[in-house]
Amino acid sequence: MPSKGQQTRETILRQAMLEVSVVGLDGLTIGQLAKKTGMSKSGLFGHFACKEALQLQVLEHAAQAFTSGVVVPALKEPRGVPRLRAIFDRWLGWAFHGHLPGGCIFLSASAELDDKPGPLRDSLEASQRLWLGTLSRASSLCRAEGHFSAAVDDEQIAFELYAIMMSAHLYGRLLREKDMAQVRARTAFEHLLNRAATAAH
Amino acid sequence: MPSKGQQTRETILRQAMLEVSVVGLDGLTIGQLAKKTGMSKSGLFGHFACKEALQLQVLEHAAQAFTSGVVVPALKEPRGVPRLRAIFDRWLGWAFHGHLPGGCIFLSASAELDDKPGPLRDSLEASQRLWLGTLSRASSLCRAEGHFSAAVDDEQIAFELYAIMMSAHLYGRLLREKDMAQVRARTAFEHLLNRAATAAH
Repeated sequence: MPSKGQQTRETILRQAMLEVSVVGLDGLTIGQLAKKTGMSKSGLFGHFACKEALQLQVLEHAAQAFTSGVVVPALKEPRGVPRLRAIFDRWLGWAFHGHLPGGCIFLSASAELDDKPGPLRDSLEASQRLWLGTLSRASSLCRAEGHFSAAVDDEQIAFELYAIMMSAHLYGRLLREKDMAQVRARTAFEHLLNRAATAAH
Repeated sequence: MPSKGQQTRETILRQAMLEVSVVGLDGLTIGQLAKKTGMSKSGLFGHFACKEALQLQVLEHAAQAFTSGVVVPALKEPRGVPRLRAIFDRWLGWAFHGHLPGGCIFLSASAELDDKPGPLRDSLEASQRLWLGTLSRASSLCRAEGHFSAAVDDEQIAFELYAIMMSAHLYGRLLREKDMAQVRARTAFEHLLNRAATAAH
């Protein structure tokens, strides 16, 4: 059983993640978070020493939420294309049907942090590399199962999957075309699968 | 001949664009810009009524720079794939070899503005729609020239071109793998051309 302190931290981080989704990591303020959680500012500082510590934990909390919401359930699917499809579906779900009102926080954090060296950037870079590694391994299992050509470049597949999802995010959020964004993303994904499979023959 | 006032405005906007590339639209401050241009804050306010007016002009200045650096030169190439290649090359150049130290300002502005209704968001959305329209028309010329299958969906091509460039930006900036980012982007682009062409047979 998590302690009361752990439960409170969890509640704070979940709310902070929602805030960051809309206002960005830099826009997160202890004052606004105190209001939303009904806690005092000093109470919040009791859990997080400073704003940067809070931001860092938000990134880590989001990475855990992504792993448990996207990666872990997909691992139950059979290796190869069925698993890659499950990953893609759940990833699209994270971006479009998740609990993040302002969309994926990794994308906005990437724009915020790419020119700001420090622990926040290090954490984000690490989580994105981990994710690209997961995508690359999923492609390599497609090759091992004979669903993809042996000659397919797994890291190229990871790059292109990431690409599809970023463009879907732009269409869905900046252009406010959420349905079309998902149709285009699924079409691009099917083209990618076809290409990787067809190369096998 | 541009007047002295116009030249000064141009100098301010160029410097502001460099700043925004690194710190984002929201991070742009009149104080920092005054320091960088060697002007007084009141001098800057003489050219731009308020920060939002300045931000808006920076977005418009960037859109003009993009048009004159990427679109206009590509129009000199023959219609169809040669022109699409020129667009892609110059777009990649804008992201990786341009004068923007912090990378493409449209991408970072998109993350900043997607949840903030107002004139800045309207301007960005309009410029991105214009650009996607240009990409879509370039694809339609590929179809007209017989370089792409008549059945190709031009807007899908635009979506996927945008996707490739966004992923390249992430690899180049967050992962600091600029060379690999460009190799992966070019590979994805060639796959896209092949698919669109092969569908013709």
